[in-house]
Amino acid sequence: MAPAPLAVSLGDPAGVGPELICEAWARRESEGLPAFFVCGGSGTLSEAARTRGIDAWYSVVSDPTELSQLPERVVPVVGDFSAGYHPGQPEGTGGRLALESLKLATRLVLEGKASGLVTGPIAKAELTKVGFSFPGQTEFVADACGILFEDAVMMLAGPQLRTVPLTVHCPIADVPGLLTADLICRRIRIVDASMKQDFGISAPRIAVCGLNPHAGEKGRMGREEIEVIEPALAALRADGIDATGPHPADTLFAPRKRNTYDVAVAMYHDQALVPLKTLDFDQGVNVTLGLPIVRTSPDHGTAFDIAGKGIADPGAMIAAIRMAGEIAARRAAAP
Amino acid sequence: MAPAPLAVSLGDPAGVGPELICEAWARRESEGLPAFFVCGGSGTLSEAARTRGIDAWYSVVSDPTELSQLPERVVPVVGDFSAGYHPGQPEGTGGRLALESLKLATRLVLEGKASGLVTGPIAKAELTKVGFSFPGQTEFVADACGILFEDAVMMLAGPQLRTVPLTVHCPIADVPGLLTADLICRRIRIVDASMKQDFGISAPRIAVCGLNPHAGEKGRMGREEIEVIEPALAALRADGIDATGPHPADTLFAPRKRNTYDVAVAMYHDQALVPLKTLDFDQGVNVTLGLPIVRTSPDHGTAFDIAGKGIADPGAMIAAIRMAGEIAARRAAAP
Repeated sequence: MAPAPLAVSLGDPAGVGPELICEAWARRESEGLPAFFVCGGSGTLSEAARTRGIDAWYSVVSDPTELSQLPERVVPVVGDFSAGYHPGQPEGTGGRLALESLKLATRLVLEGKASGLVTGPIAKAELTKVGFSFPGQTEFVADACGILFEDAVMMLAGPQLRTVPLTVHCPIADVPGLLTADLICRRIRIVDASMKQDFGISAPRIAVCGLNPHAGEKGRMGREEIEVIEPALAALRADGIDATGPHPADTLFAPRKRNTYDVAVAMYHDQALVPLKTLDFDQGVNVTLGLPIVRTSPDHGTAFDIAGKGIADPGAMIAAIRMAGEIAARRAAAP
Repeated sequence: MAPAPLAVSLGDPAGVGPELICEAWARRESEGLPAFFVCGGSGTLSEAARTRGIDAWYSVVSDPTELSQLPERVVPVVGDFSAGYHPGQPEGTGGRLALESLKLATRLVLEGKASGLVTGPIAKAELTKVGFSFPGQTEFVADACGILFEDAVMMLAGPQLRTVPLTVHCPIADVPGLLTADLICRRIRIVDASMKQDFGISAPRIAVCGLNPHAGEKGRMGREEIEVIEPALAALRADGIDATGPHPADTLFAPRKRNTYDVAVAMYHDQALVPLKTLDFDQGVNVTLGLPIVRTSPDHGTAFDIAGKGIADPGAMIAAIRMAGEIAARRAAAP
């Protein structure tokens, strides 16, 4: 039996999400993408497709089980709710549509009617206006899965690099205080398990950055490496996890170094995202590790400034759909 | 009259400095490098050249004015002091040679007998043992020029990117407190002046990073952008300096964005060095802005682990010599 399709949430309808989903759909055969459907937004999708010159019909069904009856050449949409299409002009109706789409997609994956979740880019400010109380989609999905936020680990994956920031959306001033040996161990264990389960790497090589310049240079520029990071890595290695470091971050992402590990673990947001986006800007995928369900997302925002202009690059959306399919297939095949 | 040659200091003789200087010398014609001489270390250079299969004779003179009398095919060395060659094994004699070489090279540039200074990589720990009391060569050179450390600004320049970290060798925990509007303005004015004077860019576009993820996202993740960086940039713009930002650092180094500025100013070490070394690892040049003399350096360390093995990449040394020559020529041609 074919695996269940993926559920894709629309993202903010005024952003680039809808047009990129249509573009991915139009290229599904040439790109060899797994089967997917979109949650809601048929009217929005239809108009967004036109802005990119994509000729498509949309069929709306109420449940993914009905998808097999659809003709092959229509975009399958599950859920009969939509809104208008005003690219670049976010407003309340759009926020509600984005939230409904996210909720339905998450529910269908949790019910096993979809094999994985791919979330389109949302605008947090718009979702907050319609009652969304989470810092982001990742936290919403973690909560829906019954997982603590701190055990849902963000990984950014591009063709040349995978990185995990151990702290994410917090001021730089808070980072040194947030980094505890417990947090480092807990999250790196999740990274190690996911590399094996989701990426098929039997002995993952995990390179861990220091916090300070030159990884502190033996305590001359900060003591977090000595007091926090090194003990955490020693504990992980004692458990058989191949975690090396702390490495100076500035040289860890150089071309020759990138071949020496499967994933780089960074101490804060920009330490992980700067090298990833410097190298793989249009193909970065945000994967949430540690969840019972598969969840990916293109690693870009709503890009309101270019929405509807037919110029947004679909690379990350296509990569997110492909990666969700690959992870779902690995999990399904696991003994 | 031909411009004065550049003075190159040896760096630690146990590191890769001597062999890379020899390699640059061997390639001076194919690379179109400006004239340069080395300060001291003839014996070390001779042995280092052999490890790379370079056939060269060395002539030692006591003053650069005698260089014109040398046959063209010998490596010109100014200063009759040297030490042995024990690649990968730093020790006291080497530290003394490195320091003597740096002192002589700096003095000859200050005296106008050389048009610029290129410093080979040193090991701070070795120099400290022989009485060197500066945090690094940059501070030594600034002091020799009578310039305050805070007005000697480090820029990293590669073929694809130029970056300036506003704070450098300090713990991450200290960065938020060190960033004042005064420091930001003072250093960016130096960057602006140098882009014009040294790089020939008449209207430099300076892109400035935020400190926090997403440049603080309107104060939701840190307030340094609002309270410190934005007022500083407003003051600079009021003076006609094209300083934009604060930009989210994670997207600023993406390929499309790199075309929108001439130099990126970062708030801390890794924010500047991670993208530079991710892109241009073997060709990064460290240039000191704000000095009355020209000073560059290859942006790598002594690399004791590969010294003497014939495998160290000379790209950064060659680029540092070339850039020093270009800056010296621009300064000489200035009205």
